Amino acid sequence: MQPNSRLLSVINRLLPAGQWLKNYKAEHFNGDLIAALIVTIMLIPQSLAYALLAGLPAEMGLYASILPLVLYGIFGSSYSLSVGPVAIISLMTASAIMPLAPAESGTYVTLAILLAFISGLMLIVLGILRFGFIANFLSHPVVSGFISASGIIIIISQLKHLLGIPMSGDNLITLGTTLSQSISQIHIATFLMAISCLGCLWWLRHHFFTYLPHWGIPLHFAQLLSKTAPVLVISLATLATYLFRLDLTGVAIVGEIPKGFPQLTWPTITLEHCQQLTSSALLIAIIGFIESVSIGKTLAAKKRQRINPNQELIGLGTANLASAFSGGLPVTGGFSRSVVNYDAGASTPAAGIFAALGIAIATLWLTPLLYYLPKAALAVTIVMAVLSLIDIDLIRKAWQYSRAEFAGITTTLIITLFLGVEYGVLSGVAISISLHLFKTARPHIAVVGEIPGTEHFRNIQRHNVITYPHIISIRVDESLYFANTSFLEDKIYSLVAQNTSAQHVILMCTAINEIDLSALETLEVINQRLQELNIHFHLSEVKGPVMDTLQKTTFTKQLNGNIYLSQHQAIEDLKQVH
Amino acid sequence: MQPNSRLLSVINRLLPAGQWLKNYKAEHFNGDLIAALIVTIMLIPQSLAYALLAGLPAEMGLYASILPLVLYGIFGSSYSLSVGPVAIISLMTASAIMPLAPAESGTYVTLAILLAFISGLMLIVLGILRFGFIANFLSHPVVSGFISASGIIIIISQLKHLLGIPMSGDNLITLGTTLSQSISQIHIATFLMAISCLGCLWWLRHHFFTYLPHWGIPLHFAQLLSKTAPVLVISLATLATYLFRLDLTGVAIVGEIPKGFPQLTWPTITLEHCQQLTSSALLIAIIGFIESVSIGKTLAAKKRQRINPNQELIGLGTANLASAFSGGLPVTGGFSRSVVNYDAGASTPAAGIFAALGIAIATLWLTPLLYYLPKAALAVTIVMAVLSLIDIDLIRKAWQYSRAEFAGITTTLIITLFLGVEYGVLSGVAISISLHLFKTARPHIAVVGEIPGTEHFRNIQRHNVITYPHIISIRVDESLYFANTSFLEDKIYSLVAQNTSAQHVILMCTAINEIDLSALETLEVINQRLQELNIHFHLSEVKGPVMDTLQKTTFTKQLNGNIYLSQHQAIEDLKQVH
Repeated sequence: MQPNSRLLSVINRLLPAGQWLKNYKAEHFNGDLIAALIVTIMLIPQSLAYALLAGLPAEMGLYASILPLVLYGIFGSSYSLSVGPVAIISLMTASAIMPLAPAESGTYVTLAILLAFISGLMLIVLGILRFGFIANFLSHPVVSGFISASGIIIIISQLKHLLGIPMSGDNLITLGTTLSQSISQIHIATFLMAISCLGCLWWLRHHFFTYLPHWGIPLHFAQLLSKTAPVLVISLATLATYLFRLDLTGVAIVGEIPKGFPQLTWPTITLEHCQQLTSSALLIAIIGFIESVSIGKTLAAKKRQRINPNQELIGLGTANLASAFSGGLPVTGGFSRSVVNYDAGASTPAAGIFAALGIAIATLWLTPLLYYLPKAALAVTIVMAVLSLIDIDLIRKAWQYSRAEFAGITTTLIITLFLGVEYGVLSGVAISISLHLFKTARPHIAVVGEIPGTEHFRNIQRHNVITYPHIISIRVDESLYFANTSFLEDKIYSLVAQNTSAQHVILMCTAINEIDLSALETLEVINQRLQELNIHFHLSEVKGPVMDTLQKTTFTKQLNGNIYLSQHQAIEDLKQVH
Repeated sequence: MQPNSRLLSVINRLLPAGQWLKNYKAEHFNGDLIAALIVTIMLIPQSLAYALLAGLPAEMGLYASILPLVLYGIFGSSYSLSVGPVAIISLMTASAIMPLAPAESGTYVTLAILLAFISGLMLIVLGILRFGFIANFLSHPVVSGFISASGIIIIISQLKHLLGIPMSGDNLITLGTTLSQSISQIHIATFLMAISCLGCLWWLRHHFFTYLPHWGIPLHFAQLLSKTAPVLVISLATLATYLFRLDLTGVAIVGEIPKGFPQLTWPTITLEHCQQLTSSALLIAIIGFIESVSIGKTLAAKKRQRINPNQELIGLGTANLASAFSGGLPVTGGFSRSVVNYDAGASTPAAGIFAALGIAIATLWLTPLLYYLPKAALAVTIVMAVLSLIDIDLIRKAWQYSRAEFAGITTTLIITLFLGVEYGVLSGVAISISLHLFKTARPHIAVVGEIPGTEHFRNIQRHNVITYPHIISIRVDESLYFANTSFLEDKIYSLVAQNTSAQHVILMCTAINEIDLSALETLEVINQRLQELNIHFHLSEVKGPVMDTLQKTTFTKQLNGNIYLSQHQAIEDLKQVH
């Protein structure tokens, strides 16, 4: 039995789908089916829109919303996440490929597919290596600054479709330049279409659907229905375009979408393309993963479920591979569609698989209906969806909380806006980490003395304590590592320089959880230098694990003083001047 | 008087030379002059050799050893540092320019000069911004791994001159490939010259100079004299080449060196070149600064002097600008020459200025003597100098101390060897920082209880303590920041899931020196989630500065529990089940 049950546990770990399939019940089916229906309706225009945002043919969005959903359902660990093309990842895709191939060319499409393929592979490798923790290495505020800036870039890039003018770029400078050149060519009919859709969407959201409960429709259901507002607007716009043949006046439409399933293909791979796309693919993989995991975590917590970051990497990786093989673009878990999926009652990943079925049906038979869909209407839905990404509140909060964090957010925001998303992400990582290092590089270092009648040692600047002129006791409130050892070294030398009668320096190690090799080398140098000055160097209250590592070295033998269990013992032993 | 004395202090700060000039005495002059003489003799072959290592005409090494020394003497803060071309920086220079211009072309030379110019500007800007602390952000072991690998690359690259074969590259792969193609073309006369020089240098170092004290010559003086061994070898090799006209047999010689001073020129700048060189220039600036500052610090400490890292940035920056304007390559403080300068009795930066004078005289009148200098002899001196850079001991020490640090050093070493110096430095930085983040991302978190009869709280796994089933007390031994908050979140949820009778969670904040905005947001989420589970969330022993920042936010109001001054108070208040 033992090998058999171990095999089972391995399969369970590799295929989380086994768990929910085993317990699948009729009541799950109902919830999943309704959720799938609503998500399908919502996904069709969204998929088209985000494919266009990436500069790709609309149908690629549909292709990226079939097989990836099935694969994520099998390999993913979240019960509510809905994967597919999302705004930020589409923007990053455009930004990665734009410099490498002319827009709307065959190479451009090939590169997008290859990008999904490489991202997928990378995600799977990261998952196998159990690198799920990487999501922790970007601070929330910096990610939020990056996402807000991306939102602004996306909205401005949509002016192309909203005004019917030629425009391109992936940052405010390139977008602004092309906009200024073409602003005089605004296409009036397109502009009017955009305005009407915007007004209509706004009215539906803020009036029509909010009034439904007054007419006896349950609040929860009304809220769900309101998610279909973009679909309604798009349907109306398509109908109007068809009836009045607005396309003949020059309003850009989606046009013919190849009917039927995408053919499963092996992405065209050349070494040169792989090299060009590697860094972009990695950034897309990581940002997609962070976005997806944070949504997955939030939704899972609401149901007291847990998601497994490493399994998520595998789930998203297989989803991206599936997207590549079926001719789609990079995908990840989307915020709005996952929330809709959750709210509509999806209780297992089967909801995603049913939604894939829905999109498949639409791809087979409904694409002729999308012929007259005006691109301006799709752009309106993108703008409305992306508005919620822009988080002004957090910037305000950061300003109040700490100037350093505020500087971090705004720098990321500005770099993303003016240099593009890739520099934005990279500088975001650099800024998160630098802010942390700067703080820990200058730790709080207190000179301490004994509180009379106790064995407690406290900062001499805050408490009335007993000190001895020939003893300097120092407490460092941080682990010692390469970034702060030179600060400690300077501090000790300057204390020794100020106190010419010093014979002993005691380093109180209560707050030191770790001494790295750089710090050990610095301690050796301090020891040697103090020895040259005829000063003894002691340690006190060294924690067990730190002592264990120190004893592997010759430092404890070189030490020109003692290691005391407690600071009190050290003072008792050293307070007599010899 | 006030504004006058403030002006003086500003001038003193900007021009550290003022301080030593004011107190300059005759006894300083003697020491400085002798040191300058020895350093000059040592610098001439070194400057030529490092220029050749960078792939540049030999005379550029001389040019880089005149004005830069004067400028550093005026603006630098170290009393013993000797600047000029050094091995690692020359290797980095070659590595930066090689892909951009054909070797020995005019563009190659222009780019080297431009590199010195941009590095110099960057150093000055970093100095003005007071960024001297950046030297702390590379861990010693990782820097040492990088330097060892560079040493190995330099030695292998010298096979070109030692064997008289064509060879190029900046990493083991490219060097190995070209070596394997040309290994059959070894030039026997060159090889014999190299072997003789090597043997001669080894004999001088290990026999001749060590026996001098036996013959009555003072030890200190004998040690100083031993530094002239390379000069002796080079002189003998030059003489032999001249007498036997070895150059006619094909032994490569330095050849004609333009006589006289370099013309002061403004480096030729194009925007494209600047863009191509920016990242290399920054790496050269930072590595040069780290190397220089660590030597400067060591030598200063021996004389109870201090160096000012920000002033060092300015000093090295002006030295590099001076090098660029006089047609030289990037420079920094060199280890061996600074030690010689110190040992020979240099007591002020005047020694450097005198040495510059020495090199200037040599450049004016002695260059014809260098005509027959065989390049193989220069290569031998490079190999011997660079051998000391390879630090096997530290790798062994790291292995004993911690497997993570060992992995960090060896990874840096291998990447530098096989991908080249620039990737080596960058991965070194990334590895230093990642190792630190990984350690702090999973902090020690203890569940604590009260030691009977005291107010002390300790880890329940190590001590017999009093706990209450409805209270979970947790102590985190690390500041809370973006990389570790999700670990804390998971830990709290899993403790709560295990303990179904929990009504209170107390976070004991004794070791928390900082809560960043990401951590604050996580605490808000934890608070909300515990509230949904009807569990109160309390903090205890929050440090003053942390409390100050928390009070700027709404967290203290949202908190579904209390903030207690001490953990003991918290337990006293909560231990009754309500």
